[in-house]
Amino acid sequence: MAAPPVKVYGPPMSTAVSRVLACLLEKDVQFQLIPVNMAKGEHRSPEFRKLHPFGQVPAFQDGDNISLFESRAICRYVCEKYGDRGNKELYGRNPLAKASIDQWLEAEAQNFNPPSSTLVFQLAFAPRMKIKQDEGAIKQSKEKLAKVLDVYDKRLAESRFLAGDDFSLADLSHLPNAHYLVAAADAAPLFTSPNVARWWDEISSRDSWKKVVDLQRGP
Amino acid sequence: MAAPPVKVYGPPMSTAVSRVLACLLEKDVQFQLIPVNMAKGEHRSPEFRKLHPFGQVPAFQDGDNISLFESRAICRYVCEKYGDRGNKELYGRNPLAKASIDQWLEAEAQNFNPPSSTLVFQLAFAPRMKIKQDEGAIKQSKEKLAKVLDVYDKRLAESRFLAGDDFSLADLSHLPNAHYLVAAADAAPLFTSPNVARWWDEISSRDSWKKVVDLQRGP
Repeated sequence: MAAPPVKVYGPPMSTAVSRVLACLLEKDVQFQLIPVNMAKGEHRSPEFRKLHPFGQVPAFQDGDNISLFESRAICRYVCEKYGDRGNKELYGRNPLAKASIDQWLEAEAQNFNPPSSTLVFQLAFAPRMKIKQDEGAIKQSKEKLAKVLDVYDKRLAESRFLAGDDFSLADLSHLPNAHYLVAAADAAPLFTSPNVARWWDEISSRDSWKKVVDLQRGP
Repeated sequence: MAAPPVKVYGPPMSTAVSRVLACLLEKDVQFQLIPVNMAKGEHRSPEFRKLHPFGQVPAFQDGDNISLFESRAICRYVCEKYGDRGNKELYGRNPLAKASIDQWLEAEAQNFNPPSSTLVFQLAFAPRMKIKQDEGAIKQSKEKLAKVLDVYDKRLAESRFLAGDDFSLADLSHLPNAHYLVAAADAAPLFTSPNVARWWDEISSRDSWKKVVDLQRGP
């Protein structure tokens, strides 16, 4: 009998939810996607906060005993728990590969994510939600992100992927924000330096990510 | 013959440097602290960027082949590489304990760190550097941090430490920012709710952290 699929709570449009979905697809782990109506504030309900005390998405469950939040922590867990499934290089096969992946995963979380998540909100979500864009925040975040991507371009001149020769969790973790930014006229030029562009083309054309984009588009 | 100590580049006053030092002390791993003159911009030099491409501290080396950056990635590496030394619970002894530690370490990185690092800069460093404080940023960050610490207070009502019964990397990672904030009249009240206060007293009185504070005070 197949194990019951893991549960992911939240909409695939959410960058953090889609990070977890991309990881599950790479690891070939079946999942059940459970809707959370964020427009109605369902993620802030006392019921949902039992799954995620900060009232954010995604929340994650594996069987009856494992309940986790924070997308990057969920990805690490999935790679450890389902080590023998799907893409076995995703979180490295030895301590040194893993240290390099952790390093660039932290670079994503601490350097890439702050300006890029601000830009995703301002350029992709604010217009849909009819919220006025903050021009100052957009300008400042573009400047910060350009500096981060300068470092990436140098790194990717000497390495096929961020952490080394293999596609890893470190690359994967960039997909959700970058996906919205390359689609936004105001941010796309940031991703056109030669090595970043080559890297983006390669990571965004993986089957796992294409499936996530399909889930975002809906039925 | 003892292994040569690992090298940590950067001043112990830096919150990210002190995070790594606390981890090395918990793991009983000898280290050599190598000064980086940040006032003179040494961290932005081409030479230093070979160690840390983003031009930040700390950079870290273990022997001739391992060079890492990003404090939380360095801490994870130290715990894995020196698993049999010092505090063996620091990054968990089984996958479930580790997943809980990763989850709360990400909560620190993604929820606690953004407002608290803004406050550390505004309340502790800006006055020393004779930079005008940004009252708007202080107010906004205090509000955000108060919400995060409300969640922590509930969690710490049911758990001795954030990730479970043992002091872990998740607790340790909060020490550097919280240390500056409880010393700042404007932020200290945020840490006075009963369970947060009890937790802070316990984690900040560990020998490892007291040694870091001594290093920050200098000779």
